[in-house]
Amino acid sequence: MNTLFLPELREMLADANRAELEEFCDALNAGRTAEFMEGLDNEEIWQVLQYAPPDRRAEIFGYFEHERQVEMLASHPVEQAAELVDEISSDDRVDLLQEIDQPRVEQILQLLPAEDRRDIQRLQSYKGETAGALMTTEVAMLAENLTVREALDELGRQASELETIYYLYVVDENNQLRGIVSTRQLVSRLNRPSLTLGEMMESDVISVLVTDDQEHVAEKVERFNLLAIPVVDSGRQLLGIITHDDVIDVVREELEEDAQRIAAVEPLEQDFLRIALMSLSYKRGIWLIILFFAALLTAFALRHYDQELETYAWLVAFIPLIISAGGNSGSQSATLVITAMTSGDVKLTDWPQVLRREAIVSLILGGFLASIGYAFAIFLAPSAFDALVIPFTLLSVIVCGCLCGAALPIMFKRIGWDPAMMSNPFVAGIVDILGIVIYINIARMLLG
Amino acid sequence: MNTLFLPELREMLADANRAELEEFCDALNAGRTAEFMEGLDNEEIWQVLQYAPPDRRAEIFGYFEHERQVEMLASHPVEQAAELVDEISSDDRVDLLQEIDQPRVEQILQLLPAEDRRDIQRLQSYKGETAGALMTTEVAMLAENLTVREALDELGRQASELETIYYLYVVDENNQLRGIVSTRQLVSRLNRPSLTLGEMMESDVISVLVTDDQEHVAEKVERFNLLAIPVVDSGRQLLGIITHDDVIDVVREELEEDAQRIAAVEPLEQDFLRIALMSLSYKRGIWLIILFFAALLTAFALRHYDQELETYAWLVAFIPLIISAGGNSGSQSATLVITAMTSGDVKLTDWPQVLRREAIVSLILGGFLASIGYAFAIFLAPSAFDALVIPFTLLSVIVCGCLCGAALPIMFKRIGWDPAMMSNPFVAGIVDILGIVIYINIARMLLG
Repeated sequence: MNTLFLPELREMLADANRAELEEFCDALNAGRTAEFMEGLDNEEIWQVLQYAPPDRRAEIFGYFEHERQVEMLASHPVEQAAELVDEISSDDRVDLLQEIDQPRVEQILQLLPAEDRRDIQRLQSYKGETAGALMTTEVAMLAENLTVREALDELGRQASELETIYYLYVVDENNQLRGIVSTRQLVSRLNRPSLTLGEMMESDVISVLVTDDQEHVAEKVERFNLLAIPVVDSGRQLLGIITHDDVIDVVREELEEDAQRIAAVEPLEQDFLRIALMSLSYKRGIWLIILFFAALLTAFALRHYDQELETYAWLVAFIPLIISAGGNSGSQSATLVITAMTSGDVKLTDWPQVLRREAIVSLILGGFLASIGYAFAIFLAPSAFDALVIPFTLLSVIVCGCLCGAALPIMFKRIGWDPAMMSNPFVAGIVDILGIVIYINIARMLLG
Repeated sequence: MNTLFLPELREMLADANRAELEEFCDALNAGRTAEFMEGLDNEEIWQVLQYAPPDRRAEIFGYFEHERQVEMLASHPVEQAAELVDEISSDDRVDLLQEIDQPRVEQILQLLPAEDRRDIQRLQSYKGETAGALMTTEVAMLAENLTVREALDELGRQASELETIYYLYVVDENNQLRGIVSTRQLVSRLNRPSLTLGEMMESDVISVLVTDDQEHVAEKVERFNLLAIPVVDSGRQLLGIITHDDVIDVVREELEEDAQRIAAVEPLEQDFLRIALMSLSYKRGIWLIILFFAALLTAFALRHYDQELETYAWLVAFIPLIISAGGNSGSQSATLVITAMTSGDVKLTDWPQVLRREAIVSLILGGFLASIGYAFAIFLAPSAFDALVIPFTLLSVIVCGCLCGAALPIMFKRIGWDPAMMSNPFVAGIVDILGIVIYINIARMLLG
C-alpha cells in the first residue's frame, strides 16, 4: 500500500480543495491514482472520486479491489452509484451488480438509461464461465460501405463509449458479422481515403459462440494471438467482444484450478480467504475421504501380511519410505503430464513416447535412490543380504509409480474425464497398495 | 490437425498453380491458413509460403510450431530465409535464431539490412527472463509537437512496420519517454486536428526497466490492465515494448512452474517431450532425494519405537493411513496458500486469518475422518477402546498437517524463499515424522 499522499489527500478533503483534488484525479495514470488512495477508507475514496469527471471516475474506481467496489456501490447515494455504474464497462458492472442486494440493484437500474438497463439484464442471463458471461457489448460495429475516412470519423464519435478499438467489426444491416479491420490497417490506409471497409476487411473472422466455454475462448485467443475475439450467436449476429484482460484472468483461473486439482482439492472458484469454511471443508473433504479409503485398503493389505511383518520386524521401519518414494515419483510424473497436456505440449497420441521416456527416467531415478536406500538399509537390516530387499523394492516401486503417474492422466483424458482431477488420488491409491504388495513379495522371495 | 485441404494443396503445388496458391495464402485468417497446412511437410509448406507477399508470409509462418519454424529457417535457401527473418517481429526472430547453428545465422545476418542486424544483436545481449528478452523494438515513437493530424499521417507511414499500435509513445529528441497517447484517444480527437500530442498525452507512464524480471513485467501489465508496456533503460530512454501475448505466455509459464514446484519438480523450462532425459532425471532426482532423506528420518523414528510396535503389532497396519492423511491434508493447505499468494489473494500480513481459518477447517476435516477411521479400526484393533488410538491420532495429525501446510509457505515467503519450491518437501517431511511421534505417544498414553 502506498501511503505517501494520504496526509495531503485528507487535508485536501478537509478543505474541500476542489482545484487540487481535481488535479490529483487527473494527473496520474488511473491505476496509480487508485493505488495512492488505497489507504483511505471507502467514504473518503468516494468523496475524492466525485472530483473526477464521470468516465475518469469509473476508470479509477475499476482499480480498487472487487470487494471495496461492491461496498462502495452498495452504501453511497443511489444517484451517484447509478452515475458511476453507467460509466463502468458492461462486463464489469454485471459482475459487480451480482453481489449487491436485489432491492438496491433495482434502485440503481431504475436510474440508468433504458438501453443500459436492457444491456445489463441481457448479460446477466448468460451462464457463468461462458463467452456470454465474459463479453462486453461495447464494440465498434461499422457498415461495409464506409470509406476509410468515414470509418475514422465514425470511430471518433464512438471511441469515447468503447472499451477498446484495436479491431473494427464490419456488420450488415442485421448486425451479422461480415468481416474485421484492424485499427492498424485503417491507419495505414489513410493515404487511400476512398477505399471502403468492405474492400479491405478480412472476411475469415475467428469468433466464438456466446455459449462457448471460457477455456475454449482463452485457447482460441491464445492460438490466434488476438487482442479481442468477437462473440456471435448461432446466426452469426455480433453480440459483443471478449478482451485480452479477461483472457489472462481465465488462463490464470484455469491453471490455478489445475494446481488445486493436482493437490486433490475441488477447485474453490472463490477467494481462498473469502470462501465459506463449510464449503472449503467440503471441497477438501470429499477428496480426503476418497484418499482415505485408498489408504484404508493399504491398512487391510498390511494386515493381510502380518505374519511376514512379525517374522521380519525390521521391514516395518521402511514402510513409509517405500510408500513415499512411489507416491512422490508418481505424483511428479502425473503433474508433469497434466501440465504438459494443459499447455498442449503432450497430446493423446504421444502416449508411447511419454511411457518410453518415463520408463528410462524411472530406471535412472530408481537406480539412484535404490543405491542410497541400500546404504542405509545395511544399518537397519540384520544382514547385508537381507538389506537387499530395500533397493529391489525401491527400484520396482519407483518404476511402477512413474508409469502409473504418466499413464493415468492420459487414460482419463482419453475416456473424457478431467486428468487433473482424477489422477493424483488414483496414483496415490494404486501406488501405495502396489508398493506394499511388491515390498512383501520381494521380502518373501529373498528372505523366505 | 486439419487435413481438409491437403489433397488440393498438393495438387496446386504439383501444377505450380500460382493464382490458386496466392489466393489460398491470402483469403483466410493467417492462423487458419497455417492450420490447413499443418499436414504438409516442411518442404511443401515452404513452397506454399513463397506464394504469399513477404509480410503475410511471416505472419502465417509465425503460427507453425516453434520447432518447425527453426527447421524451415535452417534448411532452405539462405536468401529466402533472410527475406523471411527480415519480416518476423524483432522479439520472435531473436528467439528463433538462438536455436539455429551459428554459421547459418551468420549467413542470414549478412543478408539483412545493417539496422536489423544491429537490432538482433542488441536484443540477443539481454539476459533470459528479463524485460529486455521479451520486448520488441518495433514501437510507434512520435514527437511531442506533432498535431493529431500529423500524428495520424506519421502513424500511417510507420504502421506497416509495427507489430502493434494500441499506444503511441511520445519521446523527445533523445528518445526519452515523455508520455503516452492511446490510438483510441487519437481517433476520438479527430475533430480537433490541431491539438498536439504534448497537450493530450498522459505523462505518468507505467513502464518497466529493461533489466526487470519477466514476472514483474507480467504483474504490472495485469495490475494496470495494459495492452503493452514500454521498456526503458535507467535513463528513461525508450527501448521497446512488451505486448500482451508475451505476457500471457509469462503468466502461463509462471503458473506451470508453480504446479511443478508444488509436485517437487524443479521447473523444466522446456517442453516435457523435448527435454533431455538426463536433465529431466536431474530436475526430479534432486527433490526425490531430499524427500527420500525426510522419509529415512521416519524410518529411524519407527526403528526407535520398535518396542511399542512389537507390543501392539496391529498399529503397524495403520501407519500408511496416518501418514497419508497428514500428508494429503497438509499438501492441500500448502497448495491453496501458494496459489492464493501467487494470485495476490493472500498477502503476508494475512497470516493470522489464514491460520485461524485452517484451524477450524482442520478440526472439521479431522473430526470427520477420525469418525470413519474409528469405524474401521474397531475391526482391526483388539478392542473398541484400543481402537480409540486411531481417531485421536488422525485428528491430531490432520490439524498439524493443515497448520504446517498453511504456515510454511508464508514463512518461506517471509524469509525470501520461493514458497512453491520449499513447502511441499518440508510439509511432507515434518508431517510424516510428527505423525509417527503423535501416533506412538497417543498409543502409549491410551494403551500403556
